[in-house]
Amino acid sequence: MKDIFGKVAIMGGGSWATALAKIVLSTQPNIHWYMRRPQAIEDFKRMKHNPGYLSAVSFDTDRIDFYSDINAAVKDSDILIFATPSPFLKQHLQKLETPIRNKMIISAIKGIVPDENMLITDYLAQCYQVPLENLAIIAGPCHAEEIALERLSYITLACRDLPKAEDLARIFHNNYLKTSCCQDVKGIEYASVLKNVYAIVAGICHGMKYGDNFQAVLVSNAIKEMQRFLDSAHILPRDITQSAYLGDLLVTAYSRYSRNRTFGTMIGKGYSVKTAQLEMEMIAEGYYGAKCIHEINEKYRVDMPILNALYDILYERKSPMTIIRQLAETFT
Amino acid sequence: MKDIFGKVAIMGGGSWATALAKIVLSTQPNIHWYMRRPQAIEDFKRMKHNPGYLSAVSFDTDRIDFYSDINAAVKDSDILIFATPSPFLKQHLQKLETPIRNKMIISAIKGIVPDENMLITDYLAQCYQVPLENLAIIAGPCHAEEIALERLSYITLACRDLPKAEDLARIFHNNYLKTSCCQDVKGIEYASVLKNVYAIVAGICHGMKYGDNFQAVLVSNAIKEMQRFLDSAHILPRDITQSAYLGDLLVTAYSRYSRNRTFGTMIGKGYSVKTAQLEMEMIAEGYYGAKCIHEINEKYRVDMPILNALYDILYERKSPMTIIRQLAETFT
Repeated sequence: MKDIFGKVAIMGGGSWATALAKIVLSTQPNIHWYMRRPQAIEDFKRMKHNPGYLSAVSFDTDRIDFYSDINAAVKDSDILIFATPSPFLKQHLQKLETPIRNKMIISAIKGIVPDENMLITDYLAQCYQVPLENLAIIAGPCHAEEIALERLSYITLACRDLPKAEDLARIFHNNYLKTSCCQDVKGIEYASVLKNVYAIVAGICHGMKYGDNFQAVLVSNAIKEMQRFLDSAHILPRDITQSAYLGDLLVTAYSRYSRNRTFGTMIGKGYSVKTAQLEMEMIAEGYYGAKCIHEINEKYRVDMPILNALYDILYERKSPMTIIRQLAETFT
Repeated sequence: MKDIFGKVAIMGGGSWATALAKIVLSTQPNIHWYMRRPQAIEDFKRMKHNPGYLSAVSFDTDRIDFYSDINAAVKDSDILIFATPSPFLKQHLQKLETPIRNKMIISAIKGIVPDENMLITDYLAQCYQVPLENLAIIAGPCHAEEIALERLSYITLACRDLPKAEDLARIFHNNYLKTSCCQDVKGIEYASVLKNVYAIVAGICHGMKYGDNFQAVLVSNAIKEMQRFLDSAHILPRDITQSAYLGDLLVTAYSRYSRNRTFGTMIGKGYSVKTAQLEMEMIAEGYYGAKCIHEINEKYRVDMPILNALYDILYERKSPMTIIRQLAETFT
């Protein structure tokens, strides 16, 4: 195993970060790993697994250099894989003084930077002067829990510089993970946000006892709505039925692991938005995604009845029963 | 409620036929209902529900004229809704002496006529001289079990004569069933066959412990394969993400009600094809569909790795483990 890419750092300590660390350690001799809390690092070293996430995955900690100082982690590394939940990204980066513009950045963050209404790569490009050819994203139907079990999965690496994406893919490609590459960075980032929005709606409908027939129609309408938005917001030829778009939507909307779907189910069952948020330990990223895309779409004015329905339920506090009934009328 | 369309007959006594009878009785004053076995009719009249299928659905039997004689049923009716499993259609029609070419025929059969390798509508057109404008199909993500529960569902009526499809749709449109119309009769019929093929493969992978990530990639690749086949076998502009194509695939591949998926799961768990068939009470239509489309595709030579994989497992008795591993290599 050769360290051909320079030092790879995992930035974040959650379940997706942990899955990515496991993957990268299957191809690289060692990794850097930034986690905000020193206590989490101490516990990790003692227990040989992440105390909070995917705890069944054991790590050889001799092959990991842990950092609780983001500047030291960045300084020592060549490739930074960001995998924090999107709502926490700004908070992590606030402490950053070391430039990252000369690093290769891979965003594994699904979401948008809240308040800023910006895609992660746009934010890194504009606020941290990272050139677009140094920005890649990793996406696809890939629940961390199944990576932990080494169940065959597929990811897509997207970078404006396609040969670079193909190079980076080698960090991830192993016997349980297959990789594809493309150039549609923004399109896939928007798709990653929207699939969480649609998963919440799928959960709401499930909670309200709509059945499998309806869910299938909802997802069919959702992928069409996604295509309409992507084709307006980022013009590029794309096949919406690719795994990075449709596959990712399916795994999120149908999977029992999806926190967005679970969040929606609680709302569909009658919990208030506040209570549903408090009950869940993990952030339902589609909650922020709905607001962000809703605002972004003021510019594009794409017909997005599903997104608008969720916005009305979450932010205008309208009755889920009324809103979903109206939404159902728009479906074909 | 007016009897504006002439007499509607339901042809078949299974679960989908029963769901359709419930639907038609929500818009029409009464129906004719052909079932092969006189005993089933006697039991139905006594129990006020179908003794074998969807038994929780009560019927007002005063509004139903039952027939065990297919010729009498056809003679007395103007619109025939065929809803027998495709493998039994020929057997039912063998007794038919009354012409059906002057009737309006709606096929609710998902499948192909075995041995003949013909779509249902082609078979009815060629062997029974039914003109194409008198042939419609009903399709969509619509499990009978959810119709029984009046869970909001969506169907598509397809007929070469679009205004006729729109007229017929009024027989089905009620407060829990929405209807769309289009002209892609053959495309949707092929899609209905293929979704059962893909649902068996989804079941096989599930039985072999492939996870949700993989299933999402399988379904994404399946819808692309379906599009490739449809675009070769029946050239017509179509949006494959419509409910009649993608939605129907989703409900079949993901639903716990799908007998095709269950059949596949048994094979994935190591049952022989024969044993899996014996264990199941209902026909897994994709078993025949795989063979038929495989043969039809000898003409079109479309790249269909998923269909071919199932054919190899079911008919060439190749090892599911080896075949699925090879199939996984083709996915993106």
